[in-house]
Amino acid sequence: MTTLLHLDASARGERSLTRQLSRLFVETWLSHRPGDHVIRRDLGAAPPPHVTEAWIAACFTPPEQRDTVMREELAWSDAALAELEAADLLVLGAPMYNYGLPSSLKAWLDQVIRIGRSFSFDLTRGDWPIEPIMRGKRLVVLSARGEFGFAEGGARGPWNHFDPHLATCARYLGVDQDAIHSLAVEYQEFNDARHARSRAETEARTLKLAAHLAQQVGPTLGEEIS
Amino acid sequence: MTTLLHLDASARGERSLTRQLSRLFVETWLSHRPGDHVIRRDLGAAPPPHVTEAWIAACFTPPEQRDTVMREELAWSDAALAELEAADLLVLGAPMYNYGLPSSLKAWLDQVIRIGRSFSFDLTRGDWPIEPIMRGKRLVVLSARGEFGFAEGGARGPWNHFDPHLATCARYLGVDQDAIHSLAVEYQEFNDARHARSRAETEARTLKLAAHLAQQVGPTLGEEIS
Repeated sequence: MTTLLHLDASARGERSLTRQLSRLFVETWLSHRPGDHVIRRDLGAAPPPHVTEAWIAACFTPPEQRDTVMREELAWSDAALAELEAADLLVLGAPMYNYGLPSSLKAWLDQVIRIGRSFSFDLTRGDWPIEPIMRGKRLVVLSARGEFGFAEGGARGPWNHFDPHLATCARYLGVDQDAIHSLAVEYQEFNDARHARSRAETEARTLKLAAHLAQQVGPTLGEEIS
Repeated sequence: MTTLLHLDASARGERSLTRQLSRLFVETWLSHRPGDHVIRRDLGAAPPPHVTEAWIAACFTPPEQRDTVMREELAWSDAALAELEAADLLVLGAPMYNYGLPSSLKAWLDQVIRIGRSFSFDLTRGDWPIEPIMRGKRLVVLSARGEFGFAEGGARGPWNHFDPHLATCARYLGVDQDAIHSLAVEYQEFNDARHARSRAETEARTLKLAAHLAQQVGPTLGEEIS
């Protein structure tokens, strides 16, 4: 059985294009593999708390020394990490807001990228002391942008602070760089034929990607997809 | 009189290096120009709300058609925008969290980058329909990073999703690309001699920058600094 973590970060509900895409992916996946397990976390509807000084202090306290207040401070993070740890495949619906991640998605990353859980820190490693703990997961990013040309080499490529940032953080989610699949609808603010075409193409590619990945999966995703 | 908007985004209080730097900048500034006005907004202590679907709908409703609920939805944004609009110089203390902006700072950007206030949108402009509304401000960014080498060409340059993202957004804060000054303490997690040196150097450069800019300022910052 494969476990999917289905995340959405759009502030919008039914009108959200990224929610439609992430739902399409998950439904397609389940049509191929009905026995698989889906964990749902809606970061748009219930945004994570921002990290606090008490949160940071609790993280850097060994688990056995944490008091009740510290454990409460980490409760949201613990729950989100348990979901992440259980997942083989992360399906993330997330729009680009102001050329980067929605603040709710950044808050989720800040909650789950945590010493002793998602990375280890050891100064004996020299100038590169941080190593990821989790491994073998895959990340599907389904995005939407008001403008266009955000692919590498595109007119707004240098303004894309969404995909490169996610790619850097993915390492600490247990996702290798070649295990990231990113699709995006563009031209949303133009609402023209180009947008309609981009939307149709991205839906078709989402369906195809879900079917392709689902068909490749054996007992666990990490072992079977290459 | 020049107006400074003093922003802090660290989750930490007294232990925060970026708060120490932003305070150093503002105190140095005021020692040169004691009559200037400082607006204070602490994004770490009181993080902005994440934008919601109702917020987006309210933004896209003409001001005269907004009902009470919509006006309440935009109240935080209105207050933050009034501060931004009043400011000639933005002094931002903000650590790098997970290679990007703290979620509280991203939430602030999402609240203040708003149609009809910080940008106009006009499809008759063709493929580049967005233009900033505010102009002539200056941005001083005082940051801290656990690791090192985040400058362009540095070992972790490609992992710096903080400065490039801020630079793209700065356009919609009324800040031109050549009006951004960014200083950062590095090596914080190593806590070694390199960190001590980086900290001392960044403090010295912060003092110098504050004195330099303060001495150049005439009646309004935008007109006089070049």
